[in-house]
Amino acid sequence: MKLAIYGYGNIGRGVEAAAQQSDDMEMLCVFTRRDPSTVVTKTGIPVYSADDILKYKDEIDVLIICGGSATDLPEMTPELAKNFNVVDSFDTHAKIPEHFANVDKAAKENGTLALISGGWDPGMFSINRLYASAILPNGKDYTFWGKGVSQGHSDAIRRIDGVKDARQYTVPIEKAVDAVRAGTMPELTTREKHLRECYVVAEDGADKARIENEIKTMPNYFADYDTTVTFITAEEMAEKHNTLPHGGMVIRSGKTGLGNENTHTIEYKLTLDSNPEFTSNVLVALARAVNKKAQRGETGCVTIFDIAPADLSPLSGDELRAHML
Amino acid sequence: MKLAIYGYGNIGRGVEAAAQQSDDMEMLCVFTRRDPSTVVTKTGIPVYSADDILKYKDEIDVLIICGGSATDLPEMTPELAKNFNVVDSFDTHAKIPEHFANVDKAAKENGTLALISGGWDPGMFSINRLYASAILPNGKDYTFWGKGVSQGHSDAIRRIDGVKDARQYTVPIEKAVDAVRAGTMPELTTREKHLRECYVVAEDGADKARIENEIKTMPNYFADYDTTVTFITAEEMAEKHNTLPHGGMVIRSGKTGLGNENTHTIEYKLTLDSNPEFTSNVLVALARAVNKKAQRGETGCVTIFDIAPADLSPLSGDELRAHML
Repeated sequence: MKLAIYGYGNIGRGVEAAAQQSDDMEMLCVFTRRDPSTVVTKTGIPVYSADDILKYKDEIDVLIICGGSATDLPEMTPELAKNFNVVDSFDTHAKIPEHFANVDKAAKENGTLALISGGWDPGMFSINRLYASAILPNGKDYTFWGKGVSQGHSDAIRRIDGVKDARQYTVPIEKAVDAVRAGTMPELTTREKHLRECYVVAEDGADKARIENEIKTMPNYFADYDTTVTFITAEEMAEKHNTLPHGGMVIRSGKTGLGNENTHTIEYKLTLDSNPEFTSNVLVALARAVNKKAQRGETGCVTIFDIAPADLSPLSGDELRAHML
Repeated sequence: MKLAIYGYGNIGRGVEAAAQQSDDMEMLCVFTRRDPSTVVTKTGIPVYSADDILKYKDEIDVLIICGGSATDLPEMTPELAKNFNVVDSFDTHAKIPEHFANVDKAAKENGTLALISGGWDPGMFSINRLYASAILPNGKDYTFWGKGVSQGHSDAIRRIDGVKDARQYTVPIEKAVDAVRAGTMPELTTREKHLRECYVVAEDGADKARIENEIKTMPNYFADYDTTVTFITAEEMAEKHNTLPHGGMVIRSGKTGLGNENTHTIEYKLTLDSNPEFTSNVLVALARAVNKKAQRGETGCVTIFDIAPADLSPLSGDELRAHML
């Protein structure tokens, strides 16, 4: 199958590397909205202008769209789905129904297949919530994130006056995780589930007390959490906070038996050195499934909920049943 | 959807309880090969003779076959698939391809849909091996079982001369689990992965040293493991070992990045008070998916690999995308 990348940031580079791990895939090229001569790919695949993408329409089985969810993907995915089978990683949970409807319309009208919201949350975490709730309907599930860098929270700190750089780690609170794992199904407030650890480089002469206060009282982002703020130097930031680890857990516990006498706990846990690279590997596996489904004549918009696990694998049904079932 | 149970043992009773947890299901009846008048169901649903099952053909959407894998299911599932959409929990891993072929032939010839090998291993553990290997092709995965009761190993001990009763717990070795979780991808021997703890009630005057030796040297079952044997009284057995807990973990770690510079670990963990009840809950969720697929006109044999997660849920696609993605 022949893939191409639209947008060459962290995720685009991750997708480029991910495709090299599978023999059944060939990564053809990158499309960029920048001047292509300014973009050099890590594997040497060519870079073309996004304006020229229709010239390559017949060569590409699946296009992986690597743009941001805030403004890029809501425009890009429906537009590109008019001509390509596509995969995106749209992750604004509240706007998924609207994005789905737009992409579904474009894909159905043009006979293409589009998968939106691939990755790990939304993505692998979502299907684990679904599997666990289908198996244990009489139960309760919990999602914990981290320890890991939240780009959105880091950006929010960077917008504060006097802040040169910032990194925010979301940290699950061990006591809450233990209670959930024990199957006690606790009611947990936002504050009881996660801590927010902030590392901040302040500008020379900036009022650190004010910055700390602005962070800790910021609505939505920090006010509902126990938040720590540590001021560090630019050198420390570059040395100790230069990677993008992440992860987390989806845990559901539930009861079975006519008297609810038995408790079961299902936990799905990710520990990731690189959030963008793991996300990219999920997107590439999903691209394989989109290609298989498109070859079977399916059109419209789908999500990871609609993907049978077998379609993610390069192995045949016979091989999977013999060796993995 | 209307379900029925074929075979009323631990799994049959678990399926009966599981179906009560979902509003979209009705459990019609139990079929038994015993004299129906000797079987009393926990929820009061009627019990019919297996000989009369064809009378109910038009009333049943999916029949859940709750027989043993050794001799029951290889006969039952292909035979019943001639007239019903069915789900079974066939768990003899090495014989799955043969069972699949037999069931697929019967189902295709008769226009029914059959799902085999549902449960957690094979089942949920299998799809977690598949998902993880599709996402991290450059990696290695490990399955640990326990701590939990292995029925097969308990039975093997009971067949030894002088043994009245026995319970065998499979126990994952923490040191091995820790190494795997740390992403070191160790090479592990059988002995390094699991311990086998045996609790044995000996007959009066039996030679305990001989029994212990026969257990520890039994090929396939115990010889390759570090095995402990503890003799207990029948009272202790009844008090402390009267439940069937189980569980385990599927853990895969893998590398990403062009230089394999980043490591990721995916862990799926089950902690189950009752192995048969959890298995039953999986079977009932799979029956929902079989019903949906059969209504779409699909026929033949499938496994959990072929089930899109959305088909397991009573929620609509819109609801799933809005609330669970």
